[in-house]
Amino acid sequence: MRAVDIVAKKRDGGELSREEIAFLISGYVAGEIPDYQVSAWAMAVFFRGMTAGETAALTQAMLQSGKTIALSDIPGPFVDKHSTGGVGDKTSLILAPLAASLGIKVPMMSGRALGHTGGTLDKLEAISGYRTALSADEFRKIIRRDGFAMTGQTAEIVPADRLLYALRDVTATVESIPLITASILSKKAAEGAQALVLDVKYGSGAFMKETAKAEALARSLVDTGSALGLKVTALLTDMDEPLGAMVGNFLEVEECLDCLEGRGPKDLMDVTLELAARMVVLGGKAANAAEGRRMCESALASGKPRELFLRNVQSQGGDPAALEAARGVYRSPVCAELRAAQGGYIARISAQDVGQAAVRLGVGRNRTEDPVCPTAGVQFHRRRGDAVQPGDALMTVWAADQAGLDSALPQLERAVEYSAAPPPPRSLIYKEVI
Amino acid sequence: MRAVDIVAKKRDGGELSREEIAFLISGYVAGEIPDYQVSAWAMAVFFRGMTAGETAALTQAMLQSGKTIALSDIPGPFVDKHSTGGVGDKTSLILAPLAASLGIKVPMMSGRALGHTGGTLDKLEAISGYRTALSADEFRKIIRRDGFAMTGQTAEIVPADRLLYALRDVTATVESIPLITASILSKKAAEGAQALVLDVKYGSGAFMKETAKAEALARSLVDTGSALGLKVTALLTDMDEPLGAMVGNFLEVEECLDCLEGRGPKDLMDVTLELAARMVVLGGKAANAAEGRRMCESALASGKPRELFLRNVQSQGGDPAALEAARGVYRSPVCAELRAAQGGYIARISAQDVGQAAVRLGVGRNRTEDPVCPTAGVQFHRRRGDAVQPGDALMTVWAADQAGLDSALPQLERAVEYSAAPPPPRSLIYKEVI
Repeated sequence: MRAVDIVAKKRDGGELSREEIAFLISGYVAGEIPDYQVSAWAMAVFFRGMTAGETAALTQAMLQSGKTIALSDIPGPFVDKHSTGGVGDKTSLILAPLAASLGIKVPMMSGRALGHTGGTLDKLEAISGYRTALSADEFRKIIRRDGFAMTGQTAEIVPADRLLYALRDVTATVESIPLITASILSKKAAEGAQALVLDVKYGSGAFMKETAKAEALARSLVDTGSALGLKVTALLTDMDEPLGAMVGNFLEVEECLDCLEGRGPKDLMDVTLELAARMVVLGGKAANAAEGRRMCESALASGKPRELFLRNVQSQGGDPAALEAARGVYRSPVCAELRAAQGGYIARISAQDVGQAAVRLGVGRNRTEDPVCPTAGVQFHRRRGDAVQPGDALMTVWAADQAGLDSALPQLERAVEYSAAPPPPRSLIYKEVI
Repeated sequence: MRAVDIVAKKRDGGELSREEIAFLISGYVAGEIPDYQVSAWAMAVFFRGMTAGETAALTQAMLQSGKTIALSDIPGPFVDKHSTGGVGDKTSLILAPLAASLGIKVPMMSGRALGHTGGTLDKLEAISGYRTALSADEFRKIIRRDGFAMTGQTAEIVPADRLLYALRDVTATVESIPLITASILSKKAAEGAQALVLDVKYGSGAFMKETAKAEALARSLVDTGSALGLKVTALLTDMDEPLGAMVGNFLEVEECLDCLEGRGPKDLMDVTLELAARMVVLGGKAANAAEGRRMCESALASGKPRELFLRNVQSQGGDPAALEAARGVYRSPVCAELRAAQGGYIARISAQDVGQAAVRLGVGRNRTEDPVCPTAGVQFHRRRGDAVQPGDALMTVWAADQAGLDSALPQLERAVEYSAAPPPPRSLIYKEVI
C-alpha cells in the first residue's frame, strides 16, 4: 500500500477502504507517512467528502492511535455533551452536575478558548486552585465519587487528532465535515462516553455560520456515532448572539452558579435544560425529552446539582468557600461601562463581534500558547428585545489591560444593533437531529 | 501574507494575485513555506484550476526561482520543441539538426525516461562518449557553432520546478493542467527559447489518454506562452501506437540516422516534418507550415541535417565514425524474436504495453535513480496495417537481462492486436492549436 495511491483514489472520488484509512493514520502517527501527503489527502477529502463508512473508519483509526480511558469498573450510564463552540457557551458547567444529580455519569474532556470561541478549561481554571489536568486515575476516581469530572485531553488520548488538527489548521483543511466528525467523535469515544448529546451551533458566533452546514455536520456526527455504537443526539442551537449575560472566564463561572441557584438567564437555561434533558434520555433515565426536562427542572430546584458542582470544585483542587467569596468581586481593575448610543430596542448583539472583542479583552486567545485573563469579560445589562434610552448602561467591560479595553470597546459598540420596534422572538433550538 | 490564507483562497475558488503566487513559490524555494502547505495548495489547484493570468504568474514565479541562460549575444531566432512524452518518440534528434540547417537556433534542454515514456538524454547517452551535462558556456558555444545543442536541466535552472515536481509526484497532484503548463514553460523560457512548438500527445502511450484533455493542455500552454511573450504553436499528435519502428536508446539513435538519410518510417517522418515545419514558421523562415514542410524536405534531401547531427555528436564528446560503426551491431546479446500468433492484419500495437515492456527490458526506468540499458529495445518488423501469416517475425527484442526479457515478452505479445480486414487509416496529426 502506498500513501500516494490513497491520495489519488480520494482525489478521484473513490471510497477508501478501512485498511487504507488505517494505513494512512497509523503511518502518519508513526512518522512513516509525511505530512505533505496527509495535507494533500485532507484537501482531497475537503473536495470529495467521505462516505459514512469512511468517516466511521477514520474515527476508529484515530481512536486506535492512542489510549482510551477504561470506565468499565464504574457503574454507568456514561453520557457526555459536546458543543461545536460559541460565545458565552457555558452549558457544560451547569449540565454536568445536573445530569450527574440524576444518576448520569459525565466523563467530560474539554478544550480551551481559541479565536472568538470560549473554552471550558479556561473557565474552570478561573476558579482559584482548580486543576484541569487530571491523571486518568484521578478522572475515574472523581467520576465515581461526584458523578462527573472535568479534564483536558492528555497527550496519550487520540494523538492522531492532535497531529491532524495542527496540520489542518495550517493547510486550510479544517472545514471538512468528515474530518470534523472524526476529530470530535474519536475524542469522545476515547474518554469512555457511551452516549453523546451534541450542541451544534450556527450563526455569527459559531464555527458553522449557516444552518444547512450545521445540520450537515450534525447528521454526519449522529450517523458516524451510531455506526461506532455510540448513542448520539444532536441539537442545532442558535449562536448568533452570546449565550447568557456574561462572557468571560470567572464571569461565566458565576453565571453558572446563578443558574444552579435558579437565577440563570432564560436563554442559557433553555439551551442547558434541552441538552441536559437529552442526556437523561440517552442515559435511560427518562422516556423522552419532555420528561427529561421536567426531571432536570426538579433536580435544579432541589439544589443537588449546585451541591455536586461545589463538591467537584473541591475534588479538583478548588475551595468552594473562596469561590463563594469571589463572586461579584473577582474582577479586573481595568474596567469601563458601555452606554446606549441611541434609544429604541436592542435588535441584536453580534456574537462574533463580542467573541472577537473578548479576545482583545484577554478572555480568549488567538494562538494556543497565549495565556488568558480570568477576570476579564463583559456583563450585559441589556439584551435582545430590551427597550433602551440613550445613555442607559448596556454592558460593563473588564479587560486584562488598558490597550485591550481601548481596542475592544469600539467593537463591542458595533456589536449592538438597535431597532425602533421590538425584534421578533427568537427560537434558540432550531432542530433536533437523531 | 500567510501561506494558509493563499491555500484557503484557492480552495474556495478565488483567483490568486501575482503577489500571492510569487510569495508562495519564492517562500517554498527559500524553505520558508513548508511542503505540507504547498501540497495542500497543489491539491486545491487540481480541483479549482487556475485562470490564464494565474498560470502565467506561476510560470513567471517559477522561472524567477533560478537562473536563465542568456543567448542574446548569439544571433537567433531561438526556437525549441517540447513533447509531452511517448513511446518511440525520437523526433528531437531529427528536427533539431533539421531546423538548424534552415537557420533556426535550437537550445534544447531535455529530460530522461520515466515510467513507460522514453527520454531524449538517455537516447543521446547511448552514443559512446556523448555528454548531456553541458555547462551554460558549452551549451551557448555549441549552439553558436552547430545551430543546436542538447543538454539536461542543471540544478540552477528553475529549482522551483524540481522541488514542486518531486512534491506533486508523491501527493497525486501531477495531473493538473496549470501546474503542468507552468512546469513546461518555465523551463523552456529559462533555456532561452523565444518560440516553442509543442507536441502534445494523446492515446495509450501518452500522459493524457484523451484528446479532450490533451487539447485543454495544448490550449493552456499556447495561451500561457503567449501571455509570457513566447510564440507558441501546439500540435496534438497520436501516441496510441509507438512512433517509428524502433523503441530503445541506441536503436532510436539509429532510426534517427535513417530518417536523416531519407530512409525513415513514414509515421515518424510525418510527425517530425510537421513539427519542424512549424519551428521554421515560428523562426520567421517560412510563411506557413506547408512552405516550412517543403523547406524541411529539401533540407533533408541536401544531407545537411545529417552532417549537423554528426557535427553535434562530435561537439558533445562522441565519435561519428564509432557511431557509424555501431549501427546494426551495438545490441544486447540477450535477444529473442517474437512471431505472429495468428494470421490477418496488425490492427494496433499498444504504445502503453510496449512502453511498459520497454521498462522491463531496461530501456526505461520506474524510479529516477535507476540506470537504463543503451542496447535494449524492440525493433518492429510488422506494424499497423501490415498483413501477417502465423509465424511471421513481428519484432526483435533485446533486453538488459534474461529476467527482463522473460517478463517483457508476454506483454509485447499482448500489445499486438489482429484483425481480419485491414484497419482504417490513422491520421497522426489530430489538430493544431495556435
